[in-house]
Formats: sequence, structure tokens, C-alpha cells
Amino acid sequence: MEKEVKNLLLDLSQLISQKSKIWISPYGVERILRAIKTTSDQWMIIRISEEPINVVNKAIEILLERKIVKVKNEKIYFTKKGREILKDINLEKIVKPECRKCEGRGINFKFDSKLYSTFLEIQKKRPKPLKKYDQGNVTPQTTIARVLLAMSHGDIENKEILILGAEDDLLGLALALTKKPKKILVLDIDKRLIDFDNYWAEKLKLNLKAEVFDLRRKLPKDLIGKFDVFFTDPSETVQSIKGFILKGIATLKSPGCVGYFGFTFKDSSLKKWYILQKILNNSKVVITEILREFNFYENWPYLEETKSFKESAAEKLPNKTIWYTSNWYRLVTLPGFKRINIDLLRYKGKKFYNDIENSTS
Amino acid sequence: MEKEVKNLLLDLSQLISQKSKIWISPYGVERILRAIKTTSDQWMIIRISEEPINVVNKAIEILLERKIVKVKNEKIYFTKKGREILKDINLEKIVKPECRKCEGRGINFKFDSKLYSTFLEIQKKRPKPLKKYDQGNVTPQTTIARVLLAMSHGDIENKEILILGAEDDLLGLALALTKKPKKILVLDIDKRLIDFDNYWAEKLKLNLKAEVFDLRRKLPKDLIGKFDVFFTDPSETVQSIKGFILKGIATLKSPGCVGYFGFTFKDSSLKKWYILQKILNNSKVVITEILREFNFYENWPYLEETKSFKESAAEKLPNKTIWYTSNWYRLVTLPGFKRINIDLLRYKGKKFYNDIENSTS
Repeated sequence: MEKEVKNLLLDLSQLISQKSKIWISPYGVERILRAIKTTSDQWMIIRISEEPINVVNKAIEILLERKIVKVKNEKIYFTKKGREILKDINLEKIVKPECRKCEGRGINFKFDSKLYSTFLEIQKKRPKPLKKYDQGNVTPQTTIARVLLAMSHGDIENKEILILGAEDDLLGLALALTKKPKKILVLDIDKRLIDFDNYWAEKLKLNLKAEVFDLRRKLPKDLIGKFDVFFTDPSETVQSIKGFILKGIATLKSPGCVGYFGFTFKDSSLKKWYILQKILNNSKVVITEILREFNFYENWPYLEETKSFKESAAEKLPNKTIWYTSNWYRLVTLPGFKRINIDLLRYKGKKFYNDIENSTS
Repeated sequence: MEKEVKNLLLDLSQLISQKSKIWISPYGVERILRAIKTTSDQWMIIRISEEPINVVNKAIEILLERKIVKVKNEKIYFTKKGREILKDINLEKIVKPECRKCEGRGINFKFDSKLYSTFLEIQKKRPKPLKKYDQGNVTPQTTIARVLLAMSHGDIENKEILILGAEDDLLGLALALTKKPKKILVLDIDKRLIDFDNYWAEKLKLNLKAEVFDLRRKLPKDLIGKFDVFFTDPSETVQSIKGFILKGIATLKSPGCVGYFGFTFKDSSLKKWYILQKILNNSKVVITEILREFNFYENWPYLEETKSFKESAAEKLPNKTIWYTSNWYRLVTLPGFKRINIDLLRYKGKKFYNDIENSTS
């Protein structure tokens, strides 16, 4: 019987890989099955699976066809047949032993209570996320945890800091509120966010400047090699890695400088993670941290228009629960690190945000 | 004045690199200075600096020569000259905003209270760490957090698991106590630990087998490609990476399998981290997590005999505070991953445990 189950997982992994065109191992399929056993909410199944949304949606489609799962009241359950097939492998629910006090990040986001409460107030007025810029902001707790993590590394005080896009997270503004950086420059394509930042910078006399900039363009020469630290949260295509992360590295002054960015399993498979790590390794930077589920994203208003929604079996919008999370990388430059500043405008339009693994743009 | 300070940091970084033969950037020197401002305890200065022990000890030696710091009552302080030199750069203390409830790991180690209390009792009787095997065990809270993290990834239930060395952490035993793995094999050179494991396995009817094995040897063929998950916590030399981590990868069954191991900044510079990541990348595995300060090590009985003690300025043994911490890697194999199982017995004796960056063996 055990052999049969093993064959089932292998068989499903091959079928899912073939239909989604994204690689998944039998272990990944097992995790999807365990996620369905853990929750009937399609969005939480995706979060717990730690596999790309497109893969999970395709897996559920196949399990539906085979009558292993069913949809009832916009929720996903095993059928009697499904439960019978699975009973012999003793597939248990996935446990979630994360610390509730710090939301599993290990960082106490209320550590500086004045910073936390000030930011909480200001961010309430932020512009709403737009589909055309692939926006979707993290929670204010996430933004503050990013600030505190960087502070604990000594990456903020007296530093010249660049934020490349993703200012819908208002990270530049939160960093500026600490009054510790020497200088902060925010580049983002969305004028609404730039105006928001500059309004608060002037009102509160913060060391922050924000400018409209399309990161597909080459960075101006006077930004190359001028910063100690950069932060970004790119869309997850290889073009975006070049546009955001490699451009960030290009702005760093010298060996020993630091970059932070987010990367998910929702829009990227392990194979894309590998490509990212190969690119970083070839750029002669070292990864010092990859923190699991560090970034929590608020549900964004255009989710219904995305592939992830349209191809889901249950077609239900998430309730208030956070389901879109990402992991947080920290890198440090080494002697001989490479500065790559290329023009990506030739990849016009959707290609910049979209590839086969990406389903939330 | 700012320029002078920048020159001081650059000057010090070059001198420290030259004398310690390990690379450090001016940012690293800045962090050492901030660590000294944060604490006067030599061991906590090392922890907070996040630079190799040999580098920090050499830095303090140079700062002593220049009369920038002084030793008083076995503690390290800035001199008046030191405070004057530093006052213009506004060097602040390093903040430690980690969550106290979970010790900064993000994992609630009391999640399964029965597992926690059972392990807490058993581990009290463990054999003491020996210098000849480069031992030094993690705290029981760390071991349980490792178990829970792996469990949350689905890496334990019904899995065949291999522990390569480092059973002084008793991780194999803790995994077995969950009763969830299909099989656990522990290989370690220390017969005391093997006997300890087998005693408890028999007494509690656990799915665990422990065998004496010297991991410098080639692994027996019948272990290659036979496990779903491995765990290890190697000494930090390139030879040890091959002996423990690459041998672990060689035992994995197929793409999608998982490995966990610890790596520090205490015994390894960022350049050695880079070499490790290059080796992993070349083996076609992807890193999914690097969790900062996940592993806390108990102070070990032979510290006075190590280079880290002998070359410290204050020559004081640590009090009960945890100062030796390490980061916890998780990796996943991809299609085409390489199985490397080489004989390292040609690197006899100390070379296996020691290199220029290692000072705690």
C-alpha cells in the first residue's frame, strides 16, 4: 500500500508539472495534500503549501477531476474517496508553531512604541494599491519589523539608504521616522506615493527625498556606488531581479554594503529561487539571511482580476486573514562585487511583471 | 571630521585584515566599535559584532595598542581618547529588538509541552562536550525549535532522517520523541552519545538507531540516496562542509529532499560564507532559509583551552550568558543535484576542524 501512495505522489507531481509547466516534487504534492487537510480555505492552502499559486491551483484542479477533493460552499475538502486514498499514509495536518507575540518573525515590532504608533497613524492615509504597478503593500507591523531588523544589524544609523520601488510599503518613510539615517532616497514609479512621502518629509522635517522613477530605466550615473544600504521588494521575474535587485547592488559604495529584498514561494518556484541565488552568487554578494514568512501582505483590491483568483477552484475572495507572505533576504557585498545597471525598457509592458510562475500581477 | 572618521574605519579595517589574515570591511569595524559601546563583556562583543572571533580579538588588540579601549576588571571600555575620537560620528549602541518570548527564533519552543518537558528531563543526563571532537551542544530550547521548524515544513512525518554528527545536540533523539519519523539513523564519532541514544531508544521504544561513524570516511554505499531529510552541525572548515553537508546531500533520495545545518559568523567570515554558498549552488541545491541566531550554544568546559580564549584581551570566562550563536540553513535538492561522497581521511587531525577563521576548536 505504501508503494501505491508513493506512486500516487510521483504520478501527481509529474502531471501537475506537465500541466502547470512548473516543476514540483512528490514532496511538494504531499505538502499540498497536507495543506488541504489543515484548512479548507483556498488562500490558506496556498500559504501552507509553500508552492507557487499556479501549481496549487493546477493541483486542486487535477484532484477535483479525480474526485479526490470537492468544492462545497466555496471551500475545499477531501471526498470520501480522497480520505480513503490518504488514510494509509497517515498524512497529518501541518503544524504552525510560530510565536504569536512576534507573528513568527522573532522581532518585537512594538520594541520602539513611539515609532510604531506614529507609523501606524500615518500609514492609514496611504494611497490604495494599483494593479498597473503590481502593488500590494505589507502590513505596518511588517514595515516596522524590517526597520528594526536592519537597525539590529547596524544598517541604518548614519547610513545613506536607497529604496527602489515598493514604496507602497512606506519603508523609506518608516526608516526616516527613526531620524537615524544620514540620507534616504526613494525611487518609485507611482507619483501618488512620491507625493505622500514628500508631504510627510516636509511636515515632519525628515531626512527623506522621494522621486518618480521607472526602474526599468538605467539608473542615473550619479546614483551608482553612492549608497550604504538598499531595500526593495520586486515583482518576481528574472527581469525584475535585474531591474530591482541588481540595480540596488550597483548603487552600493563598497564591499561590506548591504541589501534587503523580499521573495516568495507564491509567485516563484524553487527553480526560480535557484536562478536568483545563482545570479547573486555570480555578482559576488553573500546572502546572510533568508527569513521565512517575514513579510505579511494586506489583501489588495484587484485580486479578483488576477490569474490566481480566476484559476482557483473555489473562486472566493480571502477574508481578513493574511495569506500572501514572503521571505526576506539580506545580502552583503564582497570585494569584487559586480555593478550591473542595464536598460530594461526593451521588455515593455507585462513581461516585466509576469512570467509563467507569477499569478498575482 | 566625518572624513577623518571614515579614514579611521578604513585604516583599522586594513590593519585588522592584515594582522588577522581575515577580510573585514570598514562597516564591520564600525559594528565592532558599536558592540564595545553596547557591552563591556568580551563574549557579548563577539556576539553583537557578527564578525569572526579571531577578527574581533585582533581588533581589540589593535584598539588597546592605540589606547582607544582599555581593560579594567576583566571588562573592555573605551578610553577618554576613544570616546573623543568617536563622539563626532554619533556611534550608537546596537539595538536588540528580538522577541523575548521565543528567544528571537519566531518559533514557540513550548508549542508541544509534553515533547518539551520530556526532552528537558532526558537531556540533563547527556555526556559532557569533548574538545577532541569539537563538541559544544546547543540549548534544549534550540533542539526543540529545530524539531518544530522542520515539522512546520512537513519535513518529519513519515520521513527517513539521517543525523550526521553533532548528536551532542541530541536532535535525533528529540526527533524520535515526536514518534513521527519513519526512521532515524544517527551517525557520530562519539561512542558515549551513540550509547546514550540507543539506551533511550530501547527504553522508550523509539524509531531510532545510532552508530559510531567517523564522518571523514566515505559513507557506506547503502546509505547513499536513501534518506528524505538530513541534519548536521559541522565544524566550519571547507573540509567539514564536504564531510558533513555534501555527504548529507549525497544521502538524499531525490529532488525535493531537504537538509538542515548550522553555520556561524564566529568561526567563519563572510568570505567563507560565500564559498559555502558557491559550493551549495554548484551542487544544485537551493537555500530556502538562513535564520539568524537560531542556535544558542551552552558554554562548553574546554573554552579556556581554545584560541578564542587565549587571544582575548580580557581573558575572562563567560558567565551564564549565551554568547555563541549560529545561523540555521535549510536547503532543498533540485533535479540534477550532485551526490559527493569523498574520503577525507587524508586531512588527518586538526585540519578537519581548524582553519584560520576557526578559533573555538
